Amino acid sequence: QWMMLDWKPRRSDMLIDPFGIGRIVQDGLVFRQNFSIRSYEIGADRTASIETLMNHLQETALNHVKGAGLLGEGFGATPEMSKRNLIWVVTRMQVLVERYPTWGDVVQVDTWVSASGKNGMRRDWLVRDSKTGEILTRASSVWVMMNKLTRRLSKVPEEVRGEIEPYFLDYDPVVDEDSRKLPKLDDSTADYVCKGLTPRWSDLDVNQHVNNVKYIGWILESAPLSILESHELAALTLEYRRECGRDSVLQSLTAVSGAEVGDLGNAGGLECQHLLRLEDGAEIVRGRTEWRPKHANGFGNMGQIPAGSA
Amino acid sequence: QWMMLDWKPRRSDMLIDPFGIGRIVQDGLVFRQNFSIRSYEIGADRTASIETLMNHLQETALNHVKGAGLLGEGFGATPEMSKRNLIWVVTRMQVLVERYPTWGDVVQVDTWVSASGKNGMRRDWLVRDSKTGEILTRASSVWVMMNKLTRRLSKVPEEVRGEIEPYFLDYDPVVDEDSRKLPKLDDSTADYVCKGLTPRWSDLDVNQHVNNVKYIGWILESAPLSILESHELAALTLEYRRECGRDSVLQSLTAVSGAEVGDLGNAGGLECQHLLRLEDGAEIVRGRTEWRPKHANGFGNMGQIPAGSA
Repeated sequence: QWMMLDWKPRRSDMLIDPFGIGRIVQDGLVFRQNFSIRSYEIGADRTASIETLMNHLQETALNHVKGAGLLGEGFGATPEMSKRNLIWVVTRMQVLVERYPTWGDVVQVDTWVSASGKNGMRRDWLVRDSKTGEILTRASSVWVMMNKLTRRLSKVPEEVRGEIEPYFLDYDPVVDEDSRKLPKLDDSTADYVCKGLTPRWSDLDVNQHVNNVKYIGWILESAPLSILESHELAALTLEYRRECGRDSVLQSLTAVSGAEVGDLGNAGGLECQHLLRLEDGAEIVRGRTEWRPKHANGFGNMGQIPAGSA
Repeated sequence: QWMMLDWKPRRSDMLIDPFGIGRIVQDGLVFRQNFSIRSYEIGADRTASIETLMNHLQETALNHVKGAGLLGEGFGATPEMSKRNLIWVVTRMQVLVERYPTWGDVVQVDTWVSASGKNGMRRDWLVRDSKTGEILTRASSVWVMMNKLTRRLSKVPEEVRGEIEPYFLDYDPVVDEDSRKLPKLDDSTADYVCKGLTPRWSDLDVNQHVNNVKYIGWILESAPLSILESHELAALTLEYRRECGRDSVLQSLTAVSGAEVGDLGNAGGLECQHLLRLEDGAEIVRGRTEWRPKHANGFGNMGQIPAGSA
């Protein structure tokens, strides 16, 4: 699960933002935060990595929750959720990247929540270049309730619904849902398998679980280097199935379609299917990625920066 | 090498700081930047990780250079350095952490440069809690010049000295130099050895070299988990000896002193010696770390935050 989401049924006042930690806008239902892209958030391509983007999404979601006045309640969800040991867990995440920002760019992240079916919540994000307003990234996620003792999914009790509905914005999703089923890869259908992946101490979050953004790095571990060098990630769909802890040993599987495996560097658009699983076969995350040739998007002008290492 | 440092022999005007990217203070010789600690910059202890601190140091150093008007010149060092293919490389880094900030804290990082011997430059950092002014971290680094073609160290030519000296502040180092020699560990003197460490794609910087902050994570890979759980890093000394690229396979060695290896969790202060080396034995980084029991510093009040994962 990507993270737990706390919630509180009252609107917060408008917040000032002296230190760049964001503020509530639009009647208290949209949370907005600016991020200046830092030198250590860019990768070999000189642009922000997908992990950086996901980190910014996570940070705004948490600050949204914090901005709604929840911090003092610690891990508590809404009062009615707490009574029932219910927490929010993310089951699905979809990200479309139009353009990756570079060092010194300032991005503006907006996030809000909506209803999703009878028992879910959708959280959307829209990331813009703060200078031009150009949309850089759209992302959408689906959350459901889980009993934190039994670890089983739960319906949304009526009392909880009453608490959270006032926060829902009746917006269409910012991303058209990719409703294609994510296939389950195995050793025979995968083109690349990377074994023995283990969390580093720094990958763990406050629960000593692996922070879900780290999964992306592991998924990309089994993507062939020729794709990472020649293409950039344009879209990402993840289905989270199980959490993993600090003693987990993972395997990352990738299957490529859209090109011959021997000639990925010269391919046009590519699509990959991914699976992160435990060594016993238990699924952690299924994923799909779409890739476009680098510079296909016309952003050749990265500026020059001092090298990260000599 | 930790990073290349560009330089330019003219003072910049005072900069405004609308997006938290820092500004020049104190006659143009000290660079100051605030960082709000983000949720994804904290680790299992709920405090900023040492990597986060090092990232902030790197970011302020780069922005200092950028603030001095250098960005347009790309990788160029001073004009006189460029003529001679000279770049700055870091050889030594020493960090003392008094207290680790937590999510939402704002830290203020000051950085400046001074002369160091005849052929070196020192860069110091002072990190404060922006609210209270309390000093959180002191750090000092030593840089020398390298010819980027031959990869050999160089004296500072007189013409270059004339360019850079106007930037030097005549301050004492913020950290007393730890002049104890860092011993070279080997398999017989190390208590812990961790093999087969390889860079992930996201560990690479724009030169496809491993970003030097990542070395810290690898060094801590061979520190026993019982130390990481029971102690916090109080001091760190690193000697950078060689760069490593994306195909490098590393080994991380650690020797512990100050306690019986079987009873680290209950030990008071501990000291470790470290070595990162290639499989052929070539040394990348030597290091020493000092550890104090967690909460020894009286900072039990971390605040409560929503879990990073359910």
